[in-house]
Amino acid sequence: MKNYLLLLAAAVMLSCNTSTSSPADVAQDQMSQESKEPNFGIVLHGGAGTILKENMSDSMEQAYRQKLEEAIRTGHQILEEGGTAVEAVQRTINILEDSPLFNAGKGAVFTNEGTNELDASIMDGSDLNAGAVAGVTTVKNPIDLAIEVMRNSPHVMLAGKGAEEFAASVGTELVDPEYFYTESRFRSLQRIKESEKTQLDHDDQQAALTPWEYRDSKFGTVGAAALDRHGNLAAGTSTGGMTNKRWGRIGDAPIIGAGTYANNNTCAVSSTGWGEFFIRGVVAYDISALMEYKGLSLAEAAREVIQKKNPALGGDGGIVAIDKDGNIVMEFNTAGMYRASMNKKGDLQIGIYGE
Amino acid sequence: MKNYLLLLAAAVMLSCNTSTSSPADVAQDQMSQESKEPNFGIVLHGGAGTILKENMSDSMEQAYRQKLEEAIRTGHQILEEGGTAVEAVQRTINILEDSPLFNAGKGAVFTNEGTNELDASIMDGSDLNAGAVAGVTTVKNPIDLAIEVMRNSPHVMLAGKGAEEFAASVGTELVDPEYFYTESRFRSLQRIKESEKTQLDHDDQQAALTPWEYRDSKFGTVGAAALDRHGNLAAGTSTGGMTNKRWGRIGDAPIIGAGTYANNNTCAVSSTGWGEFFIRGVVAYDISALMEYKGLSLAEAAREVIQKKNPALGGDGGIVAIDKDGNIVMEFNTAGMYRASMNKKGDLQIGIYGE
Repeated sequence: MKNYLLLLAAAVMLSCNTSTSSPADVAQDQMSQESKEPNFGIVLHGGAGTILKENMSDSMEQAYRQKLEEAIRTGHQILEEGGTAVEAVQRTINILEDSPLFNAGKGAVFTNEGTNELDASIMDGSDLNAGAVAGVTTVKNPIDLAIEVMRNSPHVMLAGKGAEEFAASVGTELVDPEYFYTESRFRSLQRIKESEKTQLDHDDQQAALTPWEYRDSKFGTVGAAALDRHGNLAAGTSTGGMTNKRWGRIGDAPIIGAGTYANNNTCAVSSTGWGEFFIRGVVAYDISALMEYKGLSLAEAAREVIQKKNPALGGDGGIVAIDKDGNIVMEFNTAGMYRASMNKKGDLQIGIYGE
Repeated sequence: MKNYLLLLAAAVMLSCNTSTSSPADVAQDQMSQESKEPNFGIVLHGGAGTILKENMSDSMEQAYRQKLEEAIRTGHQILEEGGTAVEAVQRTINILEDSPLFNAGKGAVFTNEGTNELDASIMDGSDLNAGAVAGVTTVKNPIDLAIEVMRNSPHVMLAGKGAEEFAASVGTELVDPEYFYTESRFRSLQRIKESEKTQLDHDDQQAALTPWEYRDSKFGTVGAAALDRHGNLAAGTSTGGMTNKRWGRIGDAPIIGAGTYANNNTCAVSSTGWGEFFIRGVVAYDISALMEYKGLSLAEAAREVIQKKNPALGGDGGIVAIDKDGNIVMEFNTAGMYRASMNKKGDLQIGIYGE
């Protein structure tokens, strides 16, 4: 009797699904026709934080927008011409690394010791291969070295002097540490150090930072995620870490699963934010896992992780991501995030502040 | 009509579940009675690899078994007396770190430069706090330093000299790098270096390593996972890395999500194996995600990751884990894994080889 009733119930439920074609079904069919053309697209971030219009001059905003557009168009063109997702991510990040506007490469912030220690990582969604470097001081474009680690070493992650020896052995471009000196970043370090002293001394109001300046000393990574015409996903991240960092601190940017993740079955993700919370939340992989195991869309998964799980831990920041079907997401829980994207049709989106 | 039929179907299915109590239900009730008593337990590993009985002397096997038992009993007693999962994991790992038998602490393997560079990480499942250190050369018990990073720094991961400065500032026990010299590990380095030369020269058969010796130069981490009487989970991992490692290579042991993960909602996991593949697979967090998002049991999730996903990537190794209900898993795809566990009842399991 039990089995009979279950069969009846199953038959009843099945019959509810055999309706005639609705307009929605027709639209669905059209979409699947279109999706036979290989899709592609790219998205980038230049850091999340307390980015407010009232703190930004028009000329500075213009400079950011121009650089974001240059970077995203560079990656998009590579994809359009049939290049790989890894190459598009690399060249897009190179543009941001070479600009003093972003906390990566040239514009890297200063550590407590007044040095610049850079981190980067890359992941190729086609074979889940990955490369990462941490704490390098003489590598002009850390994302290039991460790619060398992925392709030309048996390792995933190299750190410090050893990573630089490897860089020299594979011919990655090295520069004098002086290359990373920018006056504005050096002044940020001085201000934060003075502010710390102030917090101890309570006697120097002039050097005090606003709360958002202090918070944002943790931010400013750059990153990109791309889907190429061959159906391969890749993501990469590059950073100078946090201003005034000490003790050889490593954030999420070079951590596969936290700062960077890509998997052709799901999506490619690059993170930016308060690194400690992104490591503890395994943020980049968590978005992929929510898609793969729970059936969420990329947009749903990103919202769940960035708007619920990350703030619940006490963290903040954002991610950019693209899924295997070319859907693009730029999700953040901070006041702003430098960001840009371009899809297959060439639709350009550039953003700095919250919506 | 559609809604009515769905309601009918739901009612039919619901009615199928209101049967009278079966013997299985009674057993279930008894189990849930028992589970009201807080459960606890602990599991450890001392590395996975090509561990075969024919390569092991009786006295050596005895030495391993004794040390594994001493370590697991130490952690178990802490839990029995109401101590925390973090403390149980720490003290269990300390025993393994202080023994020259395992590739962690005292018994750490040598890098290509003839130094010992140690990594460790810890995660507290109650608040998802975590700490990790990479590339330290003077810290007697790296797991202790990882716990200091978790508790007494705003960071999750510190590396190299900076991590040692932090260690000095919080009073973690430091030793002369000479402390980590063990003759057998130093001989392993020489043999591997000779073997590498052999592979280039093809002229020195005597120095050649067997394939399993070469493979296992990547292995030998120690780790533990525990559930305490307060319902909190924790996991920790400590390693000397791989023999002959160079370029400041960082493996999975200090990577939260890869080598170590703990979350009171799911499980606590410590990994051991070919670190690069464990990073790319985000192994420790993947097991937790399969439980949380896909509803798998700990045993199912561990089997999926270690017997399917990890070998599919080309990696090998194993994990130990305990879930929030006290279920213990020791899963590996290598010939053997040093391992031990003790549950609430005090049932002791010790293993070295495959079943």
